[in-house]
This record gives sequence, C-alpha cells and structure tokens, in this order.
Amino acid sequence: AQIALERDFEAQREADARYRLLMEFTSDAIVLVSMTSGRIVDMNMRAAVALGAARTELIGASFASQFNLAEGVDLLGSLSADTSGLGGATVEFATLRGGHHLEVRSRQFRAAGERLALCRLSEPGQDTQGLGSLA
Amino acid sequence: AQIALERDFEAQREADARYRLLMEFTSDAIVLVSMTSGRIVDMNMRAAVALGAARTELIGASFASQFNLAEGVDLLGSLSADTSGLGGATVEFATLRGGHHLEVRSRQFRAAGERLALCRLSEPGQDTQGLGSLA
Repeated sequence: AQIALERDFEAQREADARYRLLMEFTSDAIVLVSMTSGRIVDMNMRAAVALGAARTELIGASFASQFNLAEGVDLLGSLSADTSGLGGATVEFATLRGGHHLEVRSRQFRAAGERLALCRLSEPGQDTQGLGSLA
Repeated sequence: AQIALERDFEAQREADARYRLLMEFTSDAIVLVSMTSGRIVDMNMRAAVALGAARTELIGASFASQFNLAEGVDLLGSLSADTSGLGGATVEFATLRGGHHLEVRSRQFRAAGERLALCRLSEPGQDTQGLGSLA
C-alpha cells in the first residue's frame, strides 16, 4: 500500500507537471475560471500580460472585474451561453487596464463537482485556430 | 488509507483531465516527444492535422519519420540544441505527407527519469508568440 501510495503521488505530480508545462508552453493566453465563484483559478503568464497585472495578483480575483463592462453585461453568463463546447462562440470585452479589446473563447468542464471554464484570450481577429490553412 | 487512496486517485484523474482539456483547447499544434526513444508520446488533433495522419496512427511512431529530412539531418538533435528552454530556438522541416514546411519550437523536461520535449508546430512566420503586441 505504501508503494502504491508513492506511485500514485508520483503519477499525480507528473500529471500536474505536464499541465503546468503545457500552460506556459502554449502560445495562447489562457485563464482557468471557476464558473461557480467567478474567480480566476489559474492562468499563464501570457494571460497576465494581456490583462495588465501580475499573475499572483490576478489568481483568486474575479475574472469579470478584469474587464471594463457596460452596465448589465454578464461576462460569465455570455461564456456559459457558448454551448458548442468547442470554443466556437466568441465574446469580446475591453480590459480594465489598458482598455484594449480582447476576444474570449471558452470551453466548460466539470472537475470535483465544480464548473470550470478554460478561456483563451486573443486580440480581435488574431486567433489563428491552429494550422487552419493546412487542414 | 482507503480514503487517502481514493482522494489521490481523484486528484490524479483531475490533473490528467486538465492536461487533456488544455491540449485540445489550445490553438497550437502540440506534440509530446520522448527524447529517449524519439517516439510521439502524445499529441493533439491540430498536430495530427498538421502532420497529415490520424492521431492513433501517429502516437507511438517516430517523430522524425513524419518529416522529409535531408540526409544527415538529426531532428531530435536539433531540438536538443535549443538550450534556451524557452522555445526560443526554432527549426524548420518539411512534412513527409504534404511536404509543407513547419516550424518546430520545443521545450524539454524530465518526467519519471525520461527526457521529454513539448513541441509546437506552426507554419513559418505564423507563430504569434501570444499577445505580443500587448506585452
């Protein structure tokens, strides 16, 4: 049982490491948001740069508060409205700091009973959707 | 101990799920290569499209064999030569199927004693390096 525990621990550490490495390796600005609390659960450096604040400051903060939203605009609600599940629907918001417009593509999933959304931030029209021309 | 095991199992399944979701959510074409065996350990759909074959066919296959390399060209060696660790160095190869040129950026890491490389494939000049203009 001790060996099994150590093996499990090792396997988990590895899965965590892969996730963390991939977060920093991707050319996308990625934010992981809790749809329950509306808070930023995790993000990579590129997303922190896009939102104009330090990563340590942004983690745990409200995702919607990072944008300059017109009255009545429900950022999380509009992410939820994307039911394609493939990040097909795109919403656009102006950032609080800097005021530049960012497109937000998202995909929701469940983990440990919590609803989470992976969000990809990009400058309008700049999301390449991968190697489209080769497809 | 049983509860601890179940909790560990749950945590690992979650880390795995996050990694898997991120792999498919990113707009990049990503390949995970074992630098020990030279084989493709994992990849996303966009990378399979870029290499022109089915994902199931490519996983376990030699990464270098997916390119039309000139004699004496050592693909894995040139990835290893990127010691910046930040995916700064870029190498370019023509794919075996289709023959289009792809830039390969890589970052190496160790997991369970094995040397692995995360590789990002892009069309020459098309890797945005994230939200560069906002940085």
